[in-house]
Amino acid sequence: MSNVRNGRDGKANRRGRPGYDRESLLRVAVKVFNERGYDGTSMDELSKRLGISKSAIYHHVSGKDELLQLAVDRALDGLFAAADEAGALDGSAIDRLEHLVRASVAVLVAEQPFVTLLLRVRGNTAVEKRALARRREFDRLVSGLVEQAEADGDIRPDIDPAITARLLFGLVNSLIEWYRPGAGAGADEIADAVRKVAFDGLRRRPATGG
Amino acid sequence: MSNVRNGRDGKANRRGRPGYDRESLLRVAVKVFNERGYDGTSMDELSKRLGISKSAIYHHVSGKDELLQLAVDRALDGLFAAADEAGALDGSAIDRLEHLVRASVAVLVAEQPFVTLLLRVRGNTAVEKRALARRREFDRLVSGLVEQAEADGDIRPDIDPAITARLLFGLVNSLIEWYRPGAGAGADEIADAVRKVAFDGLRRRPATGG
Repeated sequence: MSNVRNGRDGKANRRGRPGYDRESLLRVAVKVFNERGYDGTSMDELSKRLGISKSAIYHHVSGKDELLQLAVDRALDGLFAAADEAGALDGSAIDRLEHLVRASVAVLVAEQPFVTLLLRVRGNTAVEKRALARRREFDRLVSGLVEQAEADGDIRPDIDPAITARLLFGLVNSLIEWYRPGAGAGADEIADAVRKVAFDGLRRRPATGG
Repeated sequence: MSNVRNGRDGKANRRGRPGYDRESLLRVAVKVFNERGYDGTSMDELSKRLGISKSAIYHHVSGKDELLQLAVDRALDGLFAAADEAGALDGSAIDRLEHLVRASVAVLVAEQPFVTLLLRVRGNTAVEKRALARRREFDRLVSGLVEQAEADGDIRPDIDPAITARLLFGLVNSLIEWYRPGAGAGADEIADAVRKVAFDGLRRRPATGG
């Protein structure tokens, strides 16, 4: 089995079997989890899809749980880095919120499969529960910025801040459903469109009524 | 097995086993599909979760495929009814678009499990392919309204209409991730918030730069 560790780039090694490092193994596993659901994917299925034995998988990770942990941490670390970056800005809360939205779009675009998996986590295992707790922490951070921006008078006061925060990140997160890297618009164009829709709205001029 | 058809309300019947009609059976099946994925749910699993035999399920439907068909048609029929309603309005394209967004939110709120299943359809089977084709038809209809509204000068011209349409329904569809009936805001408040964010934006006044 040791030969499967020789191929460091995910290509077939000299025996014609695919070789993985931890990163390429993780990427395939995440793809399978996203297709079949984490709960619905057994180690047998992973082994079949990777084309290597279960013991070869265990050379790299302790099991499904660790693969999930690595994947959701990739997504969450990216989102929290975006939040730290936004938090370090000197601007007002609405500027920090705009920055956070833009940076989060960049994370979704760069780490789409990992964020997709994160957004589907249900909380059945300890790893999932920790991921959900970190997601809630991120959501609280967004809600906090929305509340502050509303207190500053920069956000319309007639929508509940909690709903606003959810809609804002609902908009951002919806990218995982349709954005495909390399097809059509780039990350900057998407981030710009999200910012325009969410902050300024689609209408050319603000509505005067209702 | 015929006794399982006696209970018409999903409650346990006189032998202490749950009885289903087609509607209550469909609702449980959709819940299971949403939890485990359609592909990942076998008839055996459905039988276990329903607490009735497979042959009892076959009294009601021809199989998994028909359950999926019934479920996605429920969601799609609702969305197309919303589109017909919007199309019949006398107003401008942006008004019809606003109406469609509001009516679609109402469909999502009323038929959340069915829309959730629809949004996760992958296209592996004929039923799924037909559902995806109808979804694309709906998307084209939304894009058409966005284009018309942009041509009318009612929507900002600096975002691609296709991206705009996707973001708009990304925002609407994101409700399935967090909206829970009976908890917090009602359908009207949510529809109003979605309309405000998407059409007028979060900022109190339109941005002058960027």
